[in-house]
Amino acid sequence: MPVFVEEASSLRDSRVNPPHITPLPRLSPAAPFPNDVNERYEVVVVGSGPAGIMTAVLLARYGITSVLTVDEKSEQLHSGQADGIQPRTLEVLQSLDLAHEVIAQGCLLFEVGFWNPSVDGAGIVRTSFVPDVIVPTRYPHELTIHQGRIERILNEDLKRNGNAVQRDWRVEGWVFDYADEEFPVCVRMRGGNGRERVVRTKYLVGADGAHSVVREGMGLKLVGDHTDHVWGVMDAVVTTDFPDIRKRCAIHSNAGSIMIIPRERVSGGKVLSRIYCQMEDEIERDPALTTTTPADAKSRRQKVSLERIIAQTKRVISPYTIDFGDFDWWAAYQIGQRITPKFSLADANGILRVHIAGDACHTHSPKAGQGMNVSMMDGFNLSWKLAHVLTGLAPNPTALLATYEFERLEIARQLIEFDTQFSSMFSGRIGDTESGLTHDEFVAVFRAGGGFTSGCGIQYQAGLLVSNDESTVITAGPATDSGHLIPGRRVLNVKTVRFADASPRDIHDDMPSTGQYRIVVLLPTRFKSAPETGAAVMTYYASTLLGEFARGAVETVVVFPGTRGGLEWTDFPACVREVSEWLVLGDHSGETYKTWGVDEAVGALVVVRPDGYVGVVAGLEEASEGVVGYLRGVLRGVSRGSPL
Amino acid sequence: MPVFVEEASSLRDSRVNPPHITPLPRLSPAAPFPNDVNERYEVVVVGSGPAGIMTAVLLARYGITSVLTVDEKSEQLHSGQADGIQPRTLEVLQSLDLAHEVIAQGCLLFEVGFWNPSVDGAGIVRTSFVPDVIVPTRYPHELTIHQGRIERILNEDLKRNGNAVQRDWRVEGWVFDYADEEFPVCVRMRGGNGRERVVRTKYLVGADGAHSVVREGMGLKLVGDHTDHVWGVMDAVVTTDFPDIRKRCAIHSNAGSIMIIPRERVSGGKVLSRIYCQMEDEIERDPALTTTTPADAKSRRQKVSLERIIAQTKRVISPYTIDFGDFDWWAAYQIGQRITPKFSLADANGILRVHIAGDACHTHSPKAGQGMNVSMMDGFNLSWKLAHVLTGLAPNPTALLATYEFERLEIARQLIEFDTQFSSMFSGRIGDTESGLTHDEFVAVFRAGGGFTSGCGIQYQAGLLVSNDESTVITAGPATDSGHLIPGRRVLNVKTVRFADASPRDIHDDMPSTGQYRIVVLLPTRFKSAPETGAAVMTYYASTLLGEFARGAVETVVVFPGTRGGLEWTDFPACVREVSEWLVLGDHSGETYKTWGVDEAVGALVVVRPDGYVGVVAGLEEASEGVVGYLRGVLRGVSRGSPL
Repeated sequence: MPVFVEEASSLRDSRVNPPHITPLPRLSPAAPFPNDVNERYEVVVVGSGPAGIMTAVLLARYGITSVLTVDEKSEQLHSGQADGIQPRTLEVLQSLDLAHEVIAQGCLLFEVGFWNPSVDGAGIVRTSFVPDVIVPTRYPHELTIHQGRIERILNEDLKRNGNAVQRDWRVEGWVFDYADEEFPVCVRMRGGNGRERVVRTKYLVGADGAHSVVREGMGLKLVGDHTDHVWGVMDAVVTTDFPDIRKRCAIHSNAGSIMIIPRERVSGGKVLSRIYCQMEDEIERDPALTTTTPADAKSRRQKVSLERIIAQTKRVISPYTIDFGDFDWWAAYQIGQRITPKFSLADANGILRVHIAGDACHTHSPKAGQGMNVSMMDGFNLSWKLAHVLTGLAPNPTALLATYEFERLEIARQLIEFDTQFSSMFSGRIGDTESGLTHDEFVAVFRAGGGFTSGCGIQYQAGLLVSNDESTVITAGPATDSGHLIPGRRVLNVKTVRFADASPRDIHDDMPSTGQYRIVVLLPTRFKSAPETGAAVMTYYASTLLGEFARGAVETVVVFPGTRGGLEWTDFPACVREVSEWLVLGDHSGETYKTWGVDEAVGALVVVRPDGYVGVVAGLEEASEGVVGYLRGVLRGVSRGSPL
Repeated sequence: MPVFVEEASSLRDSRVNPPHITPLPRLSPAAPFPNDVNERYEVVVVGSGPAGIMTAVLLARYGITSVLTVDEKSEQLHSGQADGIQPRTLEVLQSLDLAHEVIAQGCLLFEVGFWNPSVDGAGIVRTSFVPDVIVPTRYPHELTIHQGRIERILNEDLKRNGNAVQRDWRVEGWVFDYADEEFPVCVRMRGGNGRERVVRTKYLVGADGAHSVVREGMGLKLVGDHTDHVWGVMDAVVTTDFPDIRKRCAIHSNAGSIMIIPRERVSGGKVLSRIYCQMEDEIERDPALTTTTPADAKSRRQKVSLERIIAQTKRVISPYTIDFGDFDWWAAYQIGQRITPKFSLADANGILRVHIAGDACHTHSPKAGQGMNVSMMDGFNLSWKLAHVLTGLAPNPTALLATYEFERLEIARQLIEFDTQFSSMFSGRIGDTESGLTHDEFVAVFRAGGGFTSGCGIQYQAGLLVSNDESTVITAGPATDSGHLIPGRRVLNVKTVRFADASPRDIHDDMPSTGQYRIVVLLPTRFKSAPETGAAVMTYYASTLLGEFARGAVETVVVFPGTRGGLEWTDFPACVREVSEWLVLGDHSGETYKTWGVDEAVGALVVVRPDGYVGVVAGLEEASEGVVGYLRGVLRGVSRGSPL
C-alpha cells in the first residue's frame, strides 16, 4: 500500500502485545524499582521448579514487577523428574496461552491398559482398558512431556514479561527484621561464587523442594511415613513387541510390577518411554508393611542400578521382549507420603508474610502423575492472592492470604490420602490372597480417584472466596462428575459462538488468567423475544456495579440462550457493546445452560474467581445481594468518575 | 519424588526444545561464525516487514545461523499498515506453531455483508451475506489483527532461535565483487549514527518495500499503472448503531463507498474497527478512468484529512450514525497495481545470488487483504530453497533457486490481475448504468477470487518441484475448490487418529515446516486384513529409500484406512515403529482418503514439499519411479552406513 499521509496515536503500544498480558490496576503506592540498589522486592520466590516458576510467571503477568526469583541450580532441568500433566493443569496452561506446545507435541493418554498374570502363570495378559480421564474436562486425556520443557516454556514466558530467574543463588536462611516494617522478611543467600547476599521482601515464597530452607525457617517439618517401597524409574527409547507400549499400562506379573508411561516424540523421529519398575528384592516383602527404618530404605535404594532395573523390567514383561537405547535418565526412589501441617506464617503484626508451595509442602509417589500438577496449582492459587494484596485491590489482605493455606492444605491432604492408597495397592500383587488385592479393587481405586487426580474434581471449601449459599439456581445437585456451576469448583469449559463476529469460542478462552474477577450474566429465554427486558440487569452488571471497583478489576461476560438469529447488536445496551463487545456469547449448541445446570427460562448470575473457580451463583436480578456482597468482600471500593 | 540416584545422558538437550526446531542436516562446509569479524554472512536480508522477518525466522529454524537481517526503522511497527490474515497464511503460521495467539485473539471473519443504496435512495440496505471463505481449508475464515502483532510474534521467534533483527541500518546499495568468490555480494549500509558498514554475503534478499534499494541494484523497476483512486483508511474504536459493524462489509451508497473491517480486541475490553473510505471528490470521477498523472494523484491525496474521512464515512453510512474514539492511525493512499518483471538475479557465474520479495516485487490495493499474506508467502517459498542450497542438500542449486521466481512471479501476476478488477469495481457505483456494475457482478468477482485471495487455491506450475505426471491415482479432477492431491497445490488438512497413542491429529501438525520433504504412504484396505502385505512397501519408503539421503532430509508418514481396530502395533515393520512411530495415522472418520481423492482399495504415494505443497502423486508400489525420480532430483544422494 503506497501510503502518503500516515498518523498514529499514543494508544498504539497496547495493540502490539497480547491483551491477556495486561497488568492489574494498582491502588497501592508504586513498587520499588525492580533492581533497587537496596535489594528490596515485593516478593522473593525461592526455587524455580514447577511451583516457583508458575508463581513468578503469574506475578509478572499481573504486573508485579518487583519480584526476585532465585534458584540454587545453575541451569534449567535437562532430563528426568516429572512428566505427567493432568487435564486441569492443561486448562490452566491454556488460560495463560501456554498450552499449545505441550498439547501439540506431548503424548496424549486416553486409555490405561491393565495387565495381570496369565492363568497358566507363564506370563501376562491384558485384563482391560479403562479411560484415563473420566470426569468432564476441556482436555479429556492426561498428557506426558518432559518437565524441562514445561519449565523452559514458563521461563520463556517470564522473560517475555520482563523478569527472569537468577540462578546459582542458594538461600541459606531468613528472619523477620522490623527495622524496615514494609519489607520485614530478610533473606540470606549465597552465590555460586561464594558471595553472600541479603535481600528484603514483603512476601517470601518457598518453592524450594522437599528440603525447603524456607520451611525450615518457619519451624515446620514434613510429617508422615518414611516407610517405603523402593522403585526404579528410567526414560529411554525402547524397542519391543509388547503391543501396548504406547499406552499407559499398569502391569502386575508374578515377577513384580511395572508401570509404562508413553512419552513425547524427540528429535530424529524417536519417542521416549518411561518405565517405573518395582525392584525384585521388594517383591517378597510384605506389601502391607508400613514401617521401616530410614537406614533400611537407604540401603535398599543404594543397591539399585540401571542394569538391575533393565533386568527386572525384562522379567516382568516376559514373554514379550524389550530392548533399550538412548537412555535419558534413570533414578531410584522410595515411595513415601509426607505433608507439612501449615503452609503460611504470619509476622509479629499478623500479616501472612511467608508461604511455601509444591514439594516444600507435600511429597508423594510419582505414579499418579500428580507432582508437577499439584505444585503448579499451589503457585496458581497463591500468586493472584499476593497480586491482589500488593496492588491494594483486596480490602482485607490477611483474610485473602489466609485462603491459600485454607484451600491448598486440604488438597495436599487429599493427595496424600489418595497416593497412600494407590501406591500401596500398586506395590501389592494382584491375585495374592494374603494382600487381598483383586484386579477389580485396583481399578476401583483408580477410577474413584479420577476427580482428584485429573485436577478437575477439586472443590475448595466455603469461605471468603467461596459462597456457602445453597443456591437453588442450579437445576441439579453437585454430582462429582458434573459440570454444574457449584461454588468452589472450577467453571467447566463450554462451547459458545461470539455475537460480534460469529466466531466459535471455548468460554475458557474468554476468561484467561489475568487476575480479574468475572461476572457472568446468563440471560433467560425471554430476552430473545423481548431484548429490552434484559437491559436493566445487563446495565447494572456491565456498568453500575463495575463502577464501584478499580477499572479492570472485574469483567462482565454476557451469555444468551440459543443462536443469535433475530437479535441485532443494538439489542444490547450501549455499555455492554462498549466494555464487553468481545464477551457477548450465544449458546448456539444449547449445551452451555444444560452443562452448567442453568434453567434457560430463568437465567443466572455467576461470579468467577481470578483462578477460574466459581465464587458465587445467584438468581438473575439487579443488585443481587449474593453477587454484590461477594464482590464487595473481595475488592476494595473506589470512587471513579465514570463506571466505564 | 525423593530421588536417591539419578543419572542422565548427553542426549538430553533435544528433550527441552520443541522438535520442530531441529536444524536441517548440513552436507556443506560449516558456515562462517555468525558474528564473523570480516562481516561475511551466508544470507543478508534487507527489511524486516512481513516478507523479511518470515525469511529470517525460517532460515534460523532451518539451522542457517550465519544470517544478517537489517531494517532501517529503529523500532517495530506500532500501528496501522496491514491487518488481514488469509486462511493459507494461518495454515503456514500453524505449521510454525505460531498461529495460536492470532487465532485466539484475532477477529475472525466468517461472512461479508454487502450493503447497497435503498430503493427510495434515502440510505443503504443489506443486500446479502456471502461466506468470506468458500474454499476448503483448515481455517474457514479470514482473520484480522494488527500487522505489528504478527511482526512482534515473528521477531520473538527469531530471538528464540538465536538471531535478531539489527535495526537502524539503511542499505544504500550493493555490487557483485568477486574478490571473495564465495561471498560475492557486497552490501553497503549506513547506521542511524552515520557510520558506514560493508558486509559480504552469499545470498542477498531484498524485502525492503516498494522503494527497494536491492531491486534498484538489480536494475529493475515496478511497472504498471500509476492510475489511482484515492482512498482514506483509519483504525479506531467506534460507537455506532450500524448493525453489521462486527462484520466485514462492503457498503456502496449514493454518497460513495466504504469498506468496514472488524478488528481485534485491545486492552480495556474495547475492539478496533478499520474503515476504508472513498474520498468524496472521487465519486464524480469516471470509475473507468485508468490514467492520470502522478502530480494529479499527489494533489488529490494531499487534500485528504482525518476530518474529511470521518465526514465522508458518516455520509455513506447514513441513516445509521457512527462516532469515533481512540484513533490508532489513519492514512490516505492511492490504488495502484505494479509489478517487477523479475524476482532474482544471477552473478557472473550464473548463480542466483540476489532475490527480492514482498512489496519490492509487487504493490497493490489493500482491500482484498493480500499484502501481508503474499509477502510472507514469498519469504516462505524462498527460505527453504536457500536453506537447501546452503546446507548442500540440493543437488542442483541453480535449478532449485530458479523455482522461486518461476513460482512466485506467476502468483504476483494473478494478484495484480485480481486486484485491478476487484478494486476498480469497488470504486465504482453499484446500480450505475454508465459503469454497468451490478451487485451480482460485484459478488461474482468476489467469489471467483476466493481461491486466490484465501491463498488456498494457489497452484504452482510443473517444473523441478512439481511433477507434471497426469497421475491416475487421484479419483477425480482438480476442481478449484477440491482438496484432492494435485501436484503444485498445498496438501489440505485432514483429521486422523494417531495409532501410537490414539490421539486425534490434524495432519498438518504432523508435517510442520521443518524444511524436510515427506513421503506419505497411503495404505490400501487390504492392509487391514493382511498387514504383511504392507511390509515391503513401508520398509522401502521408511528405510531403504531414506538411506539414500542425508539423515533427517525426508520423513515418512504412514496413513491407513479406517480405525485401528484389529491392528496391533507389531503389524507395522520395525523400521516404521522406530523412525515413524509418531507418524502412523488412521483415517478413523473415513474422510482422509475421500477428501484427498485417494481410492481406499488402491492406496497412493505422495511426496510433500517442505512448504506443504504436493510434489508428486504416484501409485502405491515399491521403488515407484515417480517418487524415487522426484526425490533424487531434489536431494543429493549420500552414502550412509545405516538407513535409520
